[in-house]
Amino acid sequence: MNAAGIVVEYNPFHNGHLYHVNETKRQSNADVIIAVMSGSFLQRGEPALVDKWTRTKMALLNGVDIVVELPYAFSTQKAETFASGAIQILHHLKCQSFCFGSEDGQIEPFLQTAARLDEHKEALDESVRLWMKKGSSYPAAQTLARDQIFSGHPLPLDLSKPNNILGFHYVKANNKLSGPMQPMTIFRKGAGYHDQQASGSIASATAVRTLLLDQKQADAFLPSSVQSILTEHSQNGRIHSWEMYWPLLRYRLLSIQADELNTIYEIEEGIGPRLVEAAIKSSSFSSFMERVKTKRYTWTRLQRMMTHILTNTTKEEMDKEASAVSFIRLLGMTQNGRAYIRSIKKEMTIPLLSRTAAGSDMLALDIKAARVYATLPSAPSSYTGQLLDQEFSAPPFLL
Amino acid sequence: MNAAGIVVEYNPFHNGHLYHVNETKRQSNADVIIAVMSGSFLQRGEPALVDKWTRTKMALLNGVDIVVELPYAFSTQKAETFASGAIQILHHLKCQSFCFGSEDGQIEPFLQTAARLDEHKEALDESVRLWMKKGSSYPAAQTLARDQIFSGHPLPLDLSKPNNILGFHYVKANNKLSGPMQPMTIFRKGAGYHDQQASGSIASATAVRTLLLDQKQADAFLPSSVQSILTEHSQNGRIHSWEMYWPLLRYRLLSIQADELNTIYEIEEGIGPRLVEAAIKSSSFSSFMERVKTKRYTWTRLQRMMTHILTNTTKEEMDKEASAVSFIRLLGMTQNGRAYIRSIKKEMTIPLLSRTAAGSDMLALDIKAARVYATLPSAPSSYTGQLLDQEFSAPPFLL
Repeated sequence: MNAAGIVVEYNPFHNGHLYHVNETKRQSNADVIIAVMSGSFLQRGEPALVDKWTRTKMALLNGVDIVVELPYAFSTQKAETFASGAIQILHHLKCQSFCFGSEDGQIEPFLQTAARLDEHKEALDESVRLWMKKGSSYPAAQTLARDQIFSGHPLPLDLSKPNNILGFHYVKANNKLSGPMQPMTIFRKGAGYHDQQASGSIASATAVRTLLLDQKQADAFLPSSVQSILTEHSQNGRIHSWEMYWPLLRYRLLSIQADELNTIYEIEEGIGPRLVEAAIKSSSFSSFMERVKTKRYTWTRLQRMMTHILTNTTKEEMDKEASAVSFIRLLGMTQNGRAYIRSIKKEMTIPLLSRTAAGSDMLALDIKAARVYATLPSAPSSYTGQLLDQEFSAPPFLL
Repeated sequence: MNAAGIVVEYNPFHNGHLYHVNETKRQSNADVIIAVMSGSFLQRGEPALVDKWTRTKMALLNGVDIVVELPYAFSTQKAETFASGAIQILHHLKCQSFCFGSEDGQIEPFLQTAARLDEHKEALDESVRLWMKKGSSYPAAQTLARDQIFSGHPLPLDLSKPNNILGFHYVKANNKLSGPMQPMTIFRKGAGYHDQQASGSIASATAVRTLLLDQKQADAFLPSSVQSILTEHSQNGRIHSWEMYWPLLRYRLLSIQADELNTIYEIEEGIGPRLVEAAIKSSSFSSFMERVKTKRYTWTRLQRMMTHILTNTTKEEMDKEASAVSFIRLLGMTQNGRAYIRSIKKEMTIPLLSRTAAGSDMLALDIKAARVYATLPSAPSSYTGQLLDQEFSAPPFLL
C-alpha cells in the first residue's frame, strides 16, 4: 500500500482542509492518507478550539485514513522544530510522499530555495545574529538577512508568507532524511491563514474560529459532518480559547516565583516582572497580550511562552524531547488505515502507541498538556472528566 | 497607655467576638485593644470569607483599636507556630496583657498544665514519636502520649478542645518571653468552634459562614455594622471559599511536576500521586477532600497543605521565615490606636510597616498569598483588581 502524509491542526476542519485531502489523494495517487496533527496546544501557542479526539473524528469523516499526534515537544514550536517533528513522523510511518498547502503552489521554488539557503548557510546565520543583536525578532532578522544576502539574485520563493515558511521547513526537514519522501504542494485556495474575512466556500481557520467564538454561523465554510459536531460542542460549552484559560494563566503568573519562571521553556531572564505587572492589571487574555507584546516579543512567540507557562513545561523537559521523535501516538484510523498500519508495523523503528499507559514516561509532556487542556474552568465538569478519562484509557478512534 | 492583645481571625466578626473584645477591655482595664489577625489564609487552611481590609474595618467598628496582620508564615500553621507568631507580635507591640476565649474559661488550669507538660517534656516527646510511628496523626499522638504519662494524675485542662489547645500554646509562647504579658481567658459563650448549629445571639464562625455561603440570613448573630458589610459583599461576589478556588487548585495539581510538589511546605514524599489521582476525579473541593483524607492526614492538615500548594509556598521559603517575627504589618487603627502607636514606636525593635512597598522582601510570602487570594475566578474583575491595588498601595485603614 502507498501512503501520502499531511501535516495538520484542523482547528477546526473546514472546506479548505477537505480540498487539501482530496488534492493530496489525487496528486499522489496514494491508497492511504496519514495526517500528523497537533494535540491540545497548537503551533501558534493556542489551545485547540475542540479537543484532539473530536478533531480526529472530523478528519476521519472527511477522507483521512490515519491520524497521529504531533507531540507537544514539537507542536508548540517555531516552524523549523514543528516541521522537523511532523516530517520525521510521516517518514517513520513509511509515507512515500507528503503534500502541503502554500501561497506559492509550486514545488520547484521550495526545492531551489532550500538548496540556495543551504549553500549560504554560514553567511545567513551570521547576518541573522547581527540583526537580532540590533533588536529584531527572529523572523524579522531572517527576512532582513535574506534580503541582504540575496539582494542581487532574489530567492524564487516568498518567505514572508506563513504557509510558504512552513512548507520550506517541511522540504528542508525532508532533505535531511535518509530516503526522503516525495514533496508536493498545492495552492491554498481562498483566504490566507491570517485573514479574518471569508469568501466563497473556503475561509481560513482563523476566520472560522472567529465566527464560532462569536457564536455566528460558520456552516458555509464547513463540511456537513463537521457542522453538526461543532454545533454540538458550541452548545455544550466544549469550545476552548485562550480567554477561557485566562483565570488559570493569571493565577499562575501571580503565584510563580521569579527563579521558577526562568526555568520555563522559552522564558528569557528579565521578562518576569513585566509579565506579572501586566497580569495584575489585566482582566482578559487579550488585554494582557496587548500590554506585554513588543517588537522583540511577537504575539505568536508570546502565546507560545504563555502556553509553556500554563502547562508548566520547563527547559529541562523540552531539551530531553526536542530533536528526535521517539514514539508515535495513534489517535484514530479507518478500516483502510488499520490495514495499512498492519502492513508497516513490523518495519517501524519507534513504538506506535495506541494507549497512554503504554509509555507514560515518554508521553509525560503530552499528558501534562492534555490535563491542563482539560481543566478549562468554564466547561461542564462532566466534559472535563470525560476528557481526562479519554486521555488515559481511550483506544484510538475507529471509523 | 495600657494595651491588651487578642489573637483573631474574624471569619467573619460576630457577636461572640464582640463579647470577647468587651470582656478583654473590662478585665484588663486597658486603654487600647490590639488584635493580631490572620490575613488572606487562616489557621485551619482556608481562604478568609472576606478580605483582610474588610475584616479590619469590622474589628475597628466594634471596639478594637489596632489591627495588625499575622504573617502567612504563622497564620496557616499548627496551633504551636500560629500562637508563637501571634504572641511575639503582641509582645513587640508592648501589650501588658492578652486575653483569649477558651472552653475552660479559667486561667489557672492553663498555667498549671503548661508547667506540668514542661516538667515531663522529654518523656512526652518520646511518647508522641512512638505513637506517630504507629500511624497516629500528630494531634492524636499528643493526646495518647498525655493520657499515658498523666494517667495517674490527670491534667487540669481538657486539651481535646480546640480553643483550650490554642490558649495553651499562647500561654506556653508567653512563658518563653523575657518579661511575659499577663495572660487572661474568658469562657467561650454559645456554640463551640466546630458546631454548625447556632442558638441565642452567639453562633460559631463556622455556623455563620455556613449560613452566609448558603445565602441564608445570619444577621441575628452579627453586630449591625457587620450585617450591612457582609450583605454588600455577598451581593457583589466578594465572598471567598475553598470551593471557589477549586478550579485553580485542581489546575495546579494537574500541572505540577512530582519533584516540584515535594518542595511545597508540609508536603511529604509519596502523597503526590494520591493528590493528582483525586484531583482528576473530583469536580469539587469537598469531594476532593473526601477522597484524600485519611487517619494520618486530617482535614485541617490537608487544608493547610492545599493552601501551600495554591499559594506555591515552598519549604525553603517557610524555613526562612518560620521562627522569629521580623516585621509587623499595620492593617488599620482608630484615633486612639494611632495615639498608642505613636507612644510606643520608638521603643519597638522590629519594623512596623504601613505599606507593602516599605519592605517587599520581608513581605514576599504575604504578597504572594494576597495575590493568589485576589485571583478568585468567580469574582468580578473590578473587585480583584481593587484587592491587588489595595495590597500594594493602600495605607492602613483609619477609623
